[in-house]
Amino acid sequence: MTVDILRGKRYPVAMAKGSDSKEKTLAAAARLFCRRGYHGTALQDILAAGGAPRGSLYFHFPGGKEEIAEGAVSLGDQAVRGFIRQVADTSRGAEAFVAGLARGMAANLEASDFHEGCPIATTALEIAADSDAISKATRDAFAAWEREISLALTRFGINARQAASAATAVLSQLEGALLLARTYRNLDPMRRAEDALRLLVRPDRGRQGR
Amino acid sequence: MTVDILRGKRYPVAMAKGSDSKEKTLAAAARLFCRRGYHGTALQDILAAGGAPRGSLYFHFPGGKEEIAEGAVSLGDQAVRGFIRQVADTSRGAEAFVAGLARGMAANLEASDFHEGCPIATTALEIAADSDAISKATRDAFAAWEREISLALTRFGINARQAASAATAVLSQLEGALLLARTYRNLDPMRRAEDALRLLVRPDRGRQGR
Repeated sequence: MTVDILRGKRYPVAMAKGSDSKEKTLAAAARLFCRRGYHGTALQDILAAGGAPRGSLYFHFPGGKEEIAEGAVSLGDQAVRGFIRQVADTSRGAEAFVAGLARGMAANLEASDFHEGCPIATTALEIAADSDAISKATRDAFAAWEREISLALTRFGINARQAASAATAVLSQLEGALLLARTYRNLDPMRRAEDALRLLVRPDRGRQGR
Repeated sequence: MTVDILRGKRYPVAMAKGSDSKEKTLAAAARLFCRRGYHGTALQDILAAGGAPRGSLYFHFPGGKEEIAEGAVSLGDQAVRGFIRQVADTSRGAEAFVAGLARGMAANLEASDFHEGCPIATTALEIAADSDAISKATRDAFAAWEREISLALTRFGINARQAASAATAVLSQLEGALLLARTYRNLDPMRRAEDALRLLVRPDRGRQGR
């Protein structure tokens, strides 16, 4: 999967072009869940968008829509993880890193005409009470992103314990800003998130919290 | 509407006890949308939870589910606005204020057994692309919360322009933390959000951004 988020061309999930009907179905589902949520997406929509015959859907996903959602969340998870790693690898310090995260996500949101924010947030909110399997998949994804962010912050000189705390706050700030920016249909919340994140990880400031 | 969020007893939206069937229906809908989202809530569920006869539903809401959702978002809006004002009125400074927001929301999430986070976030994410009316209601609500937060920060000595920027970041941080805390089913993200928010509004730190 190519992660092109930094150049702001496409959302990473949308970049997932499967070579077979299973992967195509998952990519289509991931995109629809990202835009309209789990309950707002019918199996019919997934079939239409993915171009797979109905028979193959039942063959690949005997667990039905729930199993498709698990796979779609996992696809979003991998895309965002790859994005975080890419930003970490091309940043020279903690401030540049968190600014790169905010900018990449902003570019990506804008490129989708404000339709595609976090690939899994909508599903996570809708499904928390309903499906253990999907709930676990969203939990694992967020936790993995926190670990990636924490790892990068550590690499940029922040000690491990502080990095873990900061990583949670960084992810919260980005998720909330994506929610607001998508709702407002403008990028101001992403810019303000970037400022707040720089402050949070600045060496003379961010490490003196409790 | 009583806002009891600070004592962590109930979610503010759940406290909305209408005196007539219209208000009862809206309160039930607000709660269901908060827990399961717009698409995951059927009219039938709203009727069952609100105890209103089907006839009264069509009488009060000729616009159907979309009109109910608009009213439910407005109810959530008022509850959160009242909560923000209450915390502002009982806080002695910017740090205590943002900590109070994070703690009140955390208590509230926990009291609902992690079912009820932000009353409008799920709907906002699901509906951004689909309904202009609901989309506008969620946009207006978030913007109103930002203004309330900004107003309070100004009162605590932060200048107006910085307060507006900080307010967006404060709301993003809280919304994202609610999403993570609800998904993880633990309050760590709320505690870490509190630390990050204190840092953001601390006089010697938060006002030196760009």
